[in-house]
Amino acid sequence: MVPHLTTALTGPLLELEKRIMDAQPTIEYWFRQQWKEQRAPFYTSVDLRNAGFKLAPVDTNLFPGGFNNLNPDFMALCVHAAMGAVEHICVNAQKLLLIPESHTRNTFYLQNVAVLANILRQAGLIVRIGTLMPEITEPTTLELPGGGRLTLEPLVRKGRRVGLDGFDPCAILLNNDLSGGIPDILKDVEQTIMPPLHAGWATRRKSQHFTAYQNLAREFSELVGIDPWLIDPMFGRCGKIDFNVRQGEECLAGKVSDLIEDISDKYREYGITQEPFIIVKADAGTYGMGIMTVKGPDDVKDLNRKARNKMSTIKEGAPVTEVLIQEGVYTFESINGAVAEPVVYMLDHFVVGGFYRVHTGRGTDENLNSPGMHFVPLAFDSACQLPDRRLNPDATPNRFYAYGVIARLAMLAASVELEEIQKEINGQSASS
Amino acid sequence: MVPHLTTALTGPLLELEKRIMDAQPTIEYWFRQQWKEQRAPFYTSVDLRNAGFKLAPVDTNLFPGGFNNLNPDFMALCVHAAMGAVEHICVNAQKLLLIPESHTRNTFYLQNVAVLANILRQAGLIVRIGTLMPEITEPTTLELPGGGRLTLEPLVRKGRRVGLDGFDPCAILLNNDLSGGIPDILKDVEQTIMPPLHAGWATRRKSQHFTAYQNLAREFSELVGIDPWLIDPMFGRCGKIDFNVRQGEECLAGKVSDLIEDISDKYREYGITQEPFIIVKADAGTYGMGIMTVKGPDDVKDLNRKARNKMSTIKEGAPVTEVLIQEGVYTFESINGAVAEPVVYMLDHFVVGGFYRVHTGRGTDENLNSPGMHFVPLAFDSACQLPDRRLNPDATPNRFYAYGVIARLAMLAASVELEEIQKEINGQSASS
Repeated sequence: MVPHLTTALTGPLLELEKRIMDAQPTIEYWFRQQWKEQRAPFYTSVDLRNAGFKLAPVDTNLFPGGFNNLNPDFMALCVHAAMGAVEHICVNAQKLLLIPESHTRNTFYLQNVAVLANILRQAGLIVRIGTLMPEITEPTTLELPGGGRLTLEPLVRKGRRVGLDGFDPCAILLNNDLSGGIPDILKDVEQTIMPPLHAGWATRRKSQHFTAYQNLAREFSELVGIDPWLIDPMFGRCGKIDFNVRQGEECLAGKVSDLIEDISDKYREYGITQEPFIIVKADAGTYGMGIMTVKGPDDVKDLNRKARNKMSTIKEGAPVTEVLIQEGVYTFESINGAVAEPVVYMLDHFVVGGFYRVHTGRGTDENLNSPGMHFVPLAFDSACQLPDRRLNPDATPNRFYAYGVIARLAMLAASVELEEIQKEINGQSASS
Repeated sequence: MVPHLTTALTGPLLELEKRIMDAQPTIEYWFRQQWKEQRAPFYTSVDLRNAGFKLAPVDTNLFPGGFNNLNPDFMALCVHAAMGAVEHICVNAQKLLLIPESHTRNTFYLQNVAVLANILRQAGLIVRIGTLMPEITEPTTLELPGGGRLTLEPLVRKGRRVGLDGFDPCAILLNNDLSGGIPDILKDVEQTIMPPLHAGWATRRKSQHFTAYQNLAREFSELVGIDPWLIDPMFGRCGKIDFNVRQGEECLAGKVSDLIEDISDKYREYGITQEPFIIVKADAGTYGMGIMTVKGPDDVKDLNRKARNKMSTIKEGAPVTEVLIQEGVYTFESINGAVAEPVVYMLDHFVVGGFYRVHTGRGTDENLNSPGMHFVPLAFDSACQLPDRRLNPDATPNRFYAYGVIARLAMLAASVELEEIQKEINGQSASS
């Protein structure tokens, strides 16, 4: 079952899908050349929006938390890709410590941890799970809804090594996005940490990611012969925001106004009659906190207290001072009347599956990944690397191929972004 | 559906499967270390025999011809592995020339070529098919039973490059085992040829392969804590055989006698009551030609004319002068009373599936891959990298995991073997 793409404006996207199909050998060759220079992140998930006239990434997560939502038929694909990732990043690792988010009550998330641990075990690693939660002071086994179990153990630091009681791992895999900053116990550790600590939201900025994506999207679009706008959401950025004391409102209103203007120009160019909209979100942060949909500068002026509160902090109470002002991309995929948004999962540089977030209570211009949201995951029923030229460009395997291509482009952008952050850190430590 | 293992003697194999399951992290770590030094062949298939008390490879094919027999659900696994192989072996290739066997009437084989070409196309290559058949002088499209088509084109040589009319490929993939020798048109070519020409039966010797396998099986068995005999068929070799003039019969009878003795010792050690047997086969060759089952030296003396004829030539009429005398391994897997033999398929160093050759008209001590044979392929219904410790060691996913491990060991042996042949060739050209 695949969501129906409900839009009369399929012209440009059909054209985009057709171009992607036609350029498939060129695209794959180009990616191969990129991976000669660039190291893919250990794992990545990318939220896409398909507006019919535009297909673009809106969020790139380096600590993906929905492996339990993937099609179980793709498990072998995950295991092979994980084997490749281990060969590339930590070939000498035998014992691996997995550090998840500090949730114990979100059973969906815990199932993700269980599936991830299972993938890594089937790839041949000895995996144990360590937690940053201070209240877990001894091995604690949690029951999962599906009948499985998960044992969380307190971390133990010895010199420059992190492990568990009786377990000294060669490598550490983070499934924790470090929104609350880098914990002391993980600082200055000699083991390989994947993704690196600077991939956490303590360091990452969405604007830096989308700048890297913009550059790659231009190069890619030239290769394929399309307008880069068809795959790239425009954006701006404001720093020094303080929603609580209403600081930075002017900057925000001005940028919103400019961006709405730019989107309107593009909509006119392509004969799109929908109303342009913008997503304002924390430049550092995840879990859809600190996010709002706006349609003009008035929407960011005179925010009421509730809205300001909502915007002012993200996960783990971190304050929002920088925001990304991103072109909103409508999602025109729907299933039984509910809005659907594809999420593509990658391990190493391979697409290993994905799912749709299907959400009945939300509009086509709203973020579908938000606090307390209840979505129904609908696993992709086929892999993303099986395009079929005998079918129409918008047939399911070909649509999934296009999703995989755009998601890989965002993942490549993340790898460029991480390299840049690494260089900045090296530069800082050299000059200090 | 998985064949039933019909033997009362499951003790040692259950023990073997249990050891393989228990040592899984050690095994995967060991393989990772091997692939740091060793380049896997582009693709490999391995025929296994499961005797209940012993699980061993009996043939390793570097030009596998049964991709059409794999489970279509594993196509994504094949495409990913092919992408990895291309990255490793010919990262700059965009156009690929596939050279199949010179059959036009074997539609099973042609379907294999079609599936293989499709895998490579989905991996992003531009693929065309060139043939060595002199009678094909212009592009010839063949209809396949499933409704597909395959276009064969005559090869064109220009200087040191091989291609087709209007098609200059960066790389050449052989699906032709060169039993008839290396054709002139492929000699001294500047493009990458995969597998290399010296992987063809013009150069390869089964005895060299099984010597490499023996060394690896010893190392592996020490790692896992088993008797290497449980995974390794014993063998001997005779050169300068001429079946037609009955030359070399003495050598053959002597080696057969010795080997039967050695097998009997092992059977006694493990309390196996079956009668030992031996497979005598051409040291260079494939397609099950030039093969016979013998149970003692008398079976190779006084061969009648028909048997001598059968043994004296292999595919494409190449004469047999060297034979491998290999310990026969019973196959005790059966399905609805028919004998079944697993064949494992690999692309790069990943297992991408496999199938059982199910053969009603053959015995448990006969070769199931023989001329004119009609087997029913039964695709593996699950991947070979999904072991599950919660199940018994002989549960389907775990049996398949063991098959994958032994097949990968044979594939690793082939990569060592190819490296040795390459060194011999380099040595010869240096000294000439």
